Amino acid sequence: MKKIHIIGLGLLGGSFALGLKKKRPDLILSGHDNNPDHVAQAKELGLITLHKERPDPDTDVVVLATPVDTLSDLVQQTLDGTGSKTLVMDFGSTKAEVCNKTAQHPKRQNYLAVHPIAGTEHSGPKAAFEQLLDGKVLIICEMEKTDVHLKAMAYELFEILNMKLRFMDPLEHDLHLAFVSHLSHATSFMLGRTVLEKMKDEKNIFDMAGSGFASTVRLSKSSPAMWAPIFLENKKNLIEAMDAYIHHMKQFRDKISTDDYTGLYKEMEEANKIREILDLEKRD
Amino acid sequence: MKKIHIIGLGLLGGSFALGLKKKRPDLILSGHDNNPDHVAQAKELGLITLHKERPDPDTDVVVLATPVDTLSDLVQQTLDGTGSKTLVMDFGSTKAEVCNKTAQHPKRQNYLAVHPIAGTEHSGPKAAFEQLLDGKVLIICEMEKTDVHLKAMAYELFEILNMKLRFMDPLEHDLHLAFVSHLSHATSFMLGRTVLEKMKDEKNIFDMAGSGFASTVRLSKSSPAMWAPIFLENKKNLIEAMDAYIHHMKQFRDKISTDDYTGLYKEMEEANKIREILDLEKRD
Repeated sequence: MKKIHIIGLGLLGGSFALGLKKKRPDLILSGHDNNPDHVAQAKELGLITLHKERPDPDTDVVVLATPVDTLSDLVQQTLDGTGSKTLVMDFGSTKAEVCNKTAQHPKRQNYLAVHPIAGTEHSGPKAAFEQLLDGKVLIICEMEKTDVHLKAMAYELFEILNMKLRFMDPLEHDLHLAFVSHLSHATSFMLGRTVLEKMKDEKNIFDMAGSGFASTVRLSKSSPAMWAPIFLENKKNLIEAMDAYIHHMKQFRDKISTDDYTGLYKEMEEANKIREILDLEKRD
Repeated sequence: MKKIHIIGLGLLGGSFALGLKKKRPDLILSGHDNNPDHVAQAKELGLITLHKERPDPDTDVVVLATPVDTLSDLVQQTLDGTGSKTLVMDFGSTKAEVCNKTAQHPKRQNYLAVHPIAGTEHSGPKAAFEQLLDGKVLIICEMEKTDVHLKAMAYELFEILNMKLRFMDPLEHDLHLAFVSHLSHATSFMLGRTVLEKMKDEKNIFDMAGSGFASTVRLSKSSPAMWAPIFLENKKNLIEAMDAYIHHMKQFRDKISTDDYTGLYKEMEEANKIREILDLEKRD
């Protein structure tokens, strides 16, 4: 393995590059981004050594880290433009659409569908950092459809980056991610929106916001260009999650409205169980 | 100033004690908690030196850090039981009710209504730590109603703890806190509730949750015994906040449902403005 090409030089693509470069300075990292500023920044920050619009024919691995609505076409174009020894993988946050659209491609075995569970509320090449992927979970979908030798190359990269592999069906992936990731982005965006609307004339009020508000509203700073496509691509599952959530919010509101202390207490006791589960994760 | 008495030895009362003790080891800190385990822990952890059910007659400052629904009565009882040189202050997260109920008390000038903007999702004496209040905002309501000499003693304590004082009307306090604190607790509790309900049979799914979910759901671990009274006491304002929030969530849901990319993008761009405001705070 010698040549890696990364398309999309933002937080995720850039952090992937930095993490690899640290452990394997011998690898040749090239890449491209549709935004010329991002290309310039990526070179300046050393995310890539070479800017190339397309991967060389002898590239070992092409990584696609662009917004999810671009990925289905980009996976197919990249498979069309590279040889039989090149592995193409995408880092998208939804997996059903891209797996489905790529299913019939003659070079399906050259494609690996993955999703690194890592990110921050920041975006762009400047947001990238070496440790983003370190110790994080990486979900792989339909691993049985990828050529075993090409897959071994991908596993080597994930091993270098110290990632924990998990295997999952793409439909199951999208359903679960709607609940444990996409929903919390929606709730946070709308928390930010609601509070800003109310406080628009008195911004000094945020002085009164503590670390709890900062934590809950953090994802409200996330990139619309990244998240609008995710929300739309995972529409069916996300709407199920949002409807369940809005229902719970309404019930909680009504319990407050009717002074139902016991009911509120029980709801919060149920919600407290998240503590055991998240603390369990920490031990992993 | 020599004797401080703290009623309610949880996260806030306990951290207040630890912060003071560090800077002013000469102060005598006594206290009480209705939970005998908390009293034992508070003594063991050194939050207080002496356990006393009631403050001595010559106590300088009595701090009340119990759930908000207990505070109106407790402020009045404490004022009744202490002398004219004792300052009584409460740390409650709602201020209108306690200020209103205390307004006619013959010793109103011995009372100071404050709210330290500090906390974590943990509770009880074991959650207390020395730096909790360091550098944090403290809101003071109706400061003009408190005796100037007693108030000077309180300001000395807040100075010792390195807190930033802000002054605000109690009604205004409760309205703003509904938006910048109580609402985010409600949204976080219901996020935890919704996701746990969906995932009840497959807890390994939380493996797929990243730091974004952890951040947004963090407040869902908060104490129901603390939060049920806050939600009910600030009912009117919180319902206004929740209704506005539920409205935004529904609109966002409908934009997803109708594939309104531009509409979603604009909503998120609006929400992104929280970045400027929260970053502004950091410079304070």
